[in-house]
Amino acid sequence: MKITGNMLLGQSEQLGQYGEIFAINPATGEQLPPAFGSGNQQQVTAACALAEDAFQSYRSTSAEQRAAFLEQIAVNILDLGDDLVERAMAETGLPRARIEGERGRTMGQLRLFAGVVRAGQGLDPRIDPAMPERQPLPRSDLRQRHVPLGPVAVFGASNFPLAFSVAGGDTASALAAGAPVVVKAHSAHPGTSELVGRAIQLAVKQCDLHQGVFSLLYGSGRMIGTGLVSDPRIKAVGFTGSQAGGTALMKIAFERPEPIPVYAEMSSANPMFLLPATLAANPTALAAGFCGSLQMGAGQFCTNPGLIVAVDGAPLQQFIDECTGLLSQSPSQTMLTPGIQQAYVSGAERLGQSTGVEQLAKGLCSDAPNQCQATLFATSAEAFIADKRLTEEVFGSCSLVIRCQDEAQMLKVAKHLEGQLTASIHCNDNENEDLVRNLISVLELKAGRVLFNGYPTGVEVCHAMVHGGPYPATSDSRSTSVGAAAIQRFMRPVCYQDVPEKYLPAEIDSANSRGLTRLVDGVLSNA
Amino acid sequence: MKITGNMLLGQSEQLGQYGEIFAINPATGEQLPPAFGSGNQQQVTAACALAEDAFQSYRSTSAEQRAAFLEQIAVNILDLGDDLVERAMAETGLPRARIEGERGRTMGQLRLFAGVVRAGQGLDPRIDPAMPERQPLPRSDLRQRHVPLGPVAVFGASNFPLAFSVAGGDTASALAAGAPVVVKAHSAHPGTSELVGRAIQLAVKQCDLHQGVFSLLYGSGRMIGTGLVSDPRIKAVGFTGSQAGGTALMKIAFERPEPIPVYAEMSSANPMFLLPATLAANPTALAAGFCGSLQMGAGQFCTNPGLIVAVDGAPLQQFIDECTGLLSQSPSQTMLTPGIQQAYVSGAERLGQSTGVEQLAKGLCSDAPNQCQATLFATSAEAFIADKRLTEEVFGSCSLVIRCQDEAQMLKVAKHLEGQLTASIHCNDNENEDLVRNLISVLELKAGRVLFNGYPTGVEVCHAMVHGGPYPATSDSRSTSVGAAAIQRFMRPVCYQDVPEKYLPAEIDSANSRGLTRLVDGVLSNA
Repeated sequence: MKITGNMLLGQSEQLGQYGEIFAINPATGEQLPPAFGSGNQQQVTAACALAEDAFQSYRSTSAEQRAAFLEQIAVNILDLGDDLVERAMAETGLPRARIEGERGRTMGQLRLFAGVVRAGQGLDPRIDPAMPERQPLPRSDLRQRHVPLGPVAVFGASNFPLAFSVAGGDTASALAAGAPVVVKAHSAHPGTSELVGRAIQLAVKQCDLHQGVFSLLYGSGRMIGTGLVSDPRIKAVGFTGSQAGGTALMKIAFERPEPIPVYAEMSSANPMFLLPATLAANPTALAAGFCGSLQMGAGQFCTNPGLIVAVDGAPLQQFIDECTGLLSQSPSQTMLTPGIQQAYVSGAERLGQSTGVEQLAKGLCSDAPNQCQATLFATSAEAFIADKRLTEEVFGSCSLVIRCQDEAQMLKVAKHLEGQLTASIHCNDNENEDLVRNLISVLELKAGRVLFNGYPTGVEVCHAMVHGGPYPATSDSRSTSVGAAAIQRFMRPVCYQDVPEKYLPAEIDSANSRGLTRLVDGVLSNA
Repeated sequence: MKITGNMLLGQSEQLGQYGEIFAINPATGEQLPPAFGSGNQQQVTAACALAEDAFQSYRSTSAEQRAAFLEQIAVNILDLGDDLVERAMAETGLPRARIEGERGRTMGQLRLFAGVVRAGQGLDPRIDPAMPERQPLPRSDLRQRHVPLGPVAVFGASNFPLAFSVAGGDTASALAAGAPVVVKAHSAHPGTSELVGRAIQLAVKQCDLHQGVFSLLYGSGRMIGTGLVSDPRIKAVGFTGSQAGGTALMKIAFERPEPIPVYAEMSSANPMFLLPATLAANPTALAAGFCGSLQMGAGQFCTNPGLIVAVDGAPLQQFIDECTGLLSQSPSQTMLTPGIQQAYVSGAERLGQSTGVEQLAKGLCSDAPNQCQATLFATSAEAFIADKRLTEEVFGSCSLVIRCQDEAQMLKVAKHLEGQLTASIHCNDNENEDLVRNLISVLELKAGRVLFNGYPTGVEVCHAMVHGGPYPATSDSRSTSVGAAAIQRFMRPVCYQDVPEKYLPAEIDSANSRGLTRLVDGVLSNA
């Protein structure tokens, strides 16, 4: 399929006239054709108007129609074939296996949400039947379901060109909720974005939906991003990216005449706690596992392990020695964009120059452009607690070992952390159970996911996943951006009081025509 | 029980030294003893520190312990006996039946949430079992439950001295979620607040909980309100009151280093749509029902019907004539505070002086202080749509009839509305079904509750209730402040990956020791 550089406005396409964007192959530094035309306020307005036009008919589609639409998008993405894989590789510097894996994950997400829609998950149907004889006052018939908030603006993420971009988790969950979507493509992979956008555009047509269900825009955050989040027809925002970017969108959304929710997944240092007996038993295996997780995808994962917390001593030194050995022989890797690479270099430099921080290891150097050399630093718990900047994520293969005097100080470090996407505990059966329980108690209040004896990279797309966490990991800890529960972000409850049967939505009708499990008078029931 | 004027800090009490607050009997204008001492930042800090201290132990209580605590509060409130009823009557001007009814509702809410806690509602337990043999990668064991956000600040509401004040819906749902609560008492009913606060304080002691589970402060919004919402230990806010008050709290919460959710229930005009055939068939009964709802509690309900939308013509004129007859013979009623009464008078005046608005009826005058004379106005749909200020709530017995040319214009008015708590449709079997469906489609996106052939005042406390709605009805349309689902406001999901059985929370253990219905591999199961 040809890549044109055009934006997709419903079933139309249009070349933006507000400047040109070119993709760069970060592995070579070369500019990739074609030029993508940046849009301006005119296309933002057009896309939002289309989305609003589409909203009533799209949210009224049956569960089966919507599920089939999601599945059709998955089919169309696969049908793009190697054109998609090769363009994504060229635009990101990521290897084929990763892109193919991510394509599979993207299709899996779409199919998961198709299942969520068919099962009626996220609707939370509730029925409190009328009690006409109740004294002193009768009770009305009261029913509740969830409806979509309205059109959603989605920002493609740089680090998941497929799974958190044009047809990624935010788009899939919003479409599943019944919300039309306007995507701002990430400028790092516009060609990948156009190809996937065309797969969605085609599915809209194949499924005979209102064309406004999906649009795709190119352009700057200042023009397209601000324009989308400010548009009164947009009712929620999905974003994955930097804390600066996320908080800027939060501010725009908050200052609208009608504030709207922003689901921004921003930054996380993903601390790993290596408990004493476990560290003493397995320093080599832990070092190998950690170094693998740290360097996966050049560390460009939201869940990259950026902090190691352990009691100082011989086992920790052995762990560090093993890591130093592994990392100093590690070839550098191509990062996603020149900007990300520059931020990595300056972030690692800043960290290395901080008071009380020493560099332990650095990966191999290379002449290729945009390289990430893995870097490992160490500091003391006191220094870590004294300097808030040491808690900040350095995006890339960079991690900081925090040497604690004892278990109590490990807990103190845990309490000092700000919000995280994940917190890992490495712990065998010989550990102090009280310490483990206390750590869980602290960490489950700090992180969206607490994991044992594993590495935080690799986020399973399933029903129980939480890819979220307290600020600044995300803008809204009450949600997840990965997994089935992500659909809830784009819905709100409505109560129907004494609404005649013929006007009731199917999910709360008296016949239970959708066969859902519903909360009837406070008790779950299939009746 | 003696009323002292002291603030309650855990199990201690303290007289504030930052100025005196006196309750005023609005029916007589007289000042009621004793003086309540306003607190300052010192007490805010102390109460928040206590709440944080209490958080870990309180959230770890069993469901049964927490439910018993909520029930004990209800018992203790009833045990306050007539002292509470008489003080509340004196501080609010509300009649005995209303106060006794509200006390019953308050106790009912506490008991509803006890049931919610026992049933494990709001925990959303999910289990995706490990798949060690899965190809290409095994799946970890993944489980999800909800945990409380942390200590909650609750602002007592002026118009529900019991049901939305110290032990009201916000407090009950936060305590049910496992969150310690710091209440800022509303200065209009400090004595009622102290009595109820002591009932909670006693229950904390009786149930052997950490004293920091509950504190009660008096003082200004500027000092106590701002202080509470700014305190880093407070993780969510519950508020019912004016749009100005709610948006001020939203701003403080947003500008914190760590922004937190604010659940502010603010203002709503609660439109009623009288469909043509129904209006023609029942103008007299509709007028009687509407006038009753309008004047209930001097119109001081969030759900007071402030807009009537109907097609102009003889039936509407008959409805108006009936209303005019009823209202012009209606005695005035005492409002809650001098401030509320003054705002009512100026709000009704402003509305009456707006372009295209005519006054239809006004209730009887009285020499008593702080009186509300019910007032009915009318305008055209064009004038209504042209002037955004006409959509603003006038708190009290004030309503505006919007004369439409036809059904299409009724729909146009519906589309023009901003967010509402409720929207009512009066509709019999002879109405145009397309009109009804279109109205529902529009109104369910505008309001938290859509009701048929009833009046919006009287909010049932049950599982299916939604007392919420899009901005500016509330600050967060994804929630309800009344009913069982209100507990969800104060919780967030956490995922547990490969956590050993002995460390798993009971609600997601493998034995299902709490006997909950859980989402296992995407399917609801009791196993």
